[in-house]
Amino acid sequence: MKAWEANIRKVVPYVPGEQPKKDRMIKLNTNENPYGPAPGVKAAAEHMDLERLRLYPDPTADLLVSALAERYGLNKDQIFVGVGSDDVLAMAFLTFFNSDKPILFPDITYSFYSVWADLYRIPYKRPALDEQFRIRKEDYDQENGGVIFPNPNAPTSLALGIRDVEDIIARNQDVIVIVDEAYIDFGGESALPLIEKYDNLLVVQTFSKSRSMAGMRIGYAMGNPVLIKAMNDVKYSFNSYTMNLPSLILGTEAVKDEAYFQETVGKIKETRERAKERLTRLGFTYPEPSANFIFATRPGTDAKTLFEALKEESIYVRYFDAPRISQYLRITIGTDEQMEAFFRFLEHYLNC
Amino acid sequence: MKAWEANIRKVVPYVPGEQPKKDRMIKLNTNENPYGPAPGVKAAAEHMDLERLRLYPDPTADLLVSALAERYGLNKDQIFVGVGSDDVLAMAFLTFFNSDKPILFPDITYSFYSVWADLYRIPYKRPALDEQFRIRKEDYDQENGGVIFPNPNAPTSLALGIRDVEDIIARNQDVIVIVDEAYIDFGGESALPLIEKYDNLLVVQTFSKSRSMAGMRIGYAMGNPVLIKAMNDVKYSFNSYTMNLPSLILGTEAVKDEAYFQETVGKIKETRERAKERLTRLGFTYPEPSANFIFATRPGTDAKTLFEALKEESIYVRYFDAPRISQYLRITIGTDEQMEAFFRFLEHYLNC
Repeated sequence: MKAWEANIRKVVPYVPGEQPKKDRMIKLNTNENPYGPAPGVKAAAEHMDLERLRLYPDPTADLLVSALAERYGLNKDQIFVGVGSDDVLAMAFLTFFNSDKPILFPDITYSFYSVWADLYRIPYKRPALDEQFRIRKEDYDQENGGVIFPNPNAPTSLALGIRDVEDIIARNQDVIVIVDEAYIDFGGESALPLIEKYDNLLVVQTFSKSRSMAGMRIGYAMGNPVLIKAMNDVKYSFNSYTMNLPSLILGTEAVKDEAYFQETVGKIKETRERAKERLTRLGFTYPEPSANFIFATRPGTDAKTLFEALKEESIYVRYFDAPRISQYLRITIGTDEQMEAFFRFLEHYLNC
Repeated sequence: MKAWEANIRKVVPYVPGEQPKKDRMIKLNTNENPYGPAPGVKAAAEHMDLERLRLYPDPTADLLVSALAERYGLNKDQIFVGVGSDDVLAMAFLTFFNSDKPILFPDITYSFYSVWADLYRIPYKRPALDEQFRIRKEDYDQENGGVIFPNPNAPTSLALGIRDVEDIIARNQDVIVIVDEAYIDFGGESALPLIEKYDNLLVVQTFSKSRSMAGMRIGYAMGNPVLIKAMNDVKYSFNSYTMNLPSLILGTEAVKDEAYFQETVGKIKETRERAKERLTRLGFTYPEPSANFIFATRPGTDAKTLFEALKEESIYVRYFDAPRISQYLRITIGTDEQMEAFFRFLEHYLNC
């Protein structure tokens, strides 16, 4: 081994979900939106003044922050934007979780939390979800250096009631509590109004799901101005200009079209209701879904075998080879046509 | 103070250079390219399939990495891409500088190096440039945890000869040596061919200067596959999808147009030659510039007063209120017309 290799940071490389590049496939594996971005985004792209690319973008991302402030009825100093909610969350870990006490997050949850904690050497504990995959709020009633959980949770799709969310925040006022609401637009109740009451609350959302812009990489955090300033200070000390010109312009356009947003989110929720019924008829069970995916299992059907069989047919869902969830599949809600193809295959596979 | 405030990471907030938004101004303060991006970029933007924005972008950024590999005659596994060279450099610090020994970089150099080192708690030493602002290669002949320097250096614009660069690399084979070549296309000799000879060398470049794409946020690192894999491992553990779809598509288009690149870089170098002569005639001195800016001083003329006077006329240059360089101005090379306006003001101001 070369001497310099000794000082390379050791990480467990995260393996991103499959991004197969087949022409004809049904992609229900990464919780993307089956509908494209708002029509105004296309027009904005065509009219973008590309000469401006020679200049650095606005480091304050004012255009986008202003659009979000208007949409959510906040002040601009209550909003932080970043390169996807992964960037926003990682920045929040780096900014807020500097205690010697462990931060807390559920044992079954978004897999990046433990990765960022390891990367920044933040100690953590992972209270177990209960048998029905519910977050037990009492578990967050212990000494800690911070709390983070998604609501709805992933990959379970299960939402925690807003009273329980508030209870967790209220009982942890000495640390920062982050509620990761990547999927909140599809169900559950947002903790956003609580940022006025609790100055230790940070609510994180994303353009990747309900706003059909996973390819644009935009996430945002909302909280009291002290929290937002602390994150911006850390961000500016890293890389002042993280949001490129197309993100600012096209992201803003996406926020403005509320009607399209409501329409597409509504369609996905309707498709989800039909998918729930059909899964039930086929003998699957699942925690009550509040996100744009269903986490389903079927007694007598091996999840991994089914996952592989679906893949053979170019139907991609997500399988996690992990304790407690290895008999489940996470199925993203696609269009009605995509779900029809998925169910046709299931009926054939299960001989129903 | 609230209890949670105690665990907020303390940073010295970096203040980005002024980005004034005046209609009529001459902006020679942030080393941007006065020419817009390659014409193909505009066409690519107009034809971009925006429906694809609903999907996550390719985490391997294969399109862009392939274009860079072809341009530089490298393999794809020798190239890492990130959100501007700031992102690439910060990732390199985090990945490679994990020794207890101090890393080394010049006392007068890019201001972010010390900020990242502080952020990641990396110890550092800053050998002083000599009286002519030259890097003294002997200073890098001491025990260290890594070496980084820009070539050409900023804000001096002075290049280090390739033999001296190689000497520094050769004498530091137990650590990673990063040569930050943000400005190399405007002058000086790239260390890139040396990556085949030295596996501890990382060469970092950017689209923000010679490729007229500061607004796009694209930077890249080139080195042996072990280094590139280590950086990708750390990057994937942070945020797998940092490069958005427009970056991949428009960045690729910019790399492909070699003729436009050569033409605009050539024009900037010619304008720089004329600016040098004219500054000399006006009594300024400067280290021999190899970047798209000149670092100039004039005996008997206070730099800060001149800086303010220029600003009054909406001509923006960069002034650093720091030891040893507080009588210098960093003047970005603009178009001939912009430089003409700048010099007309100078002649008037100096009564020449």
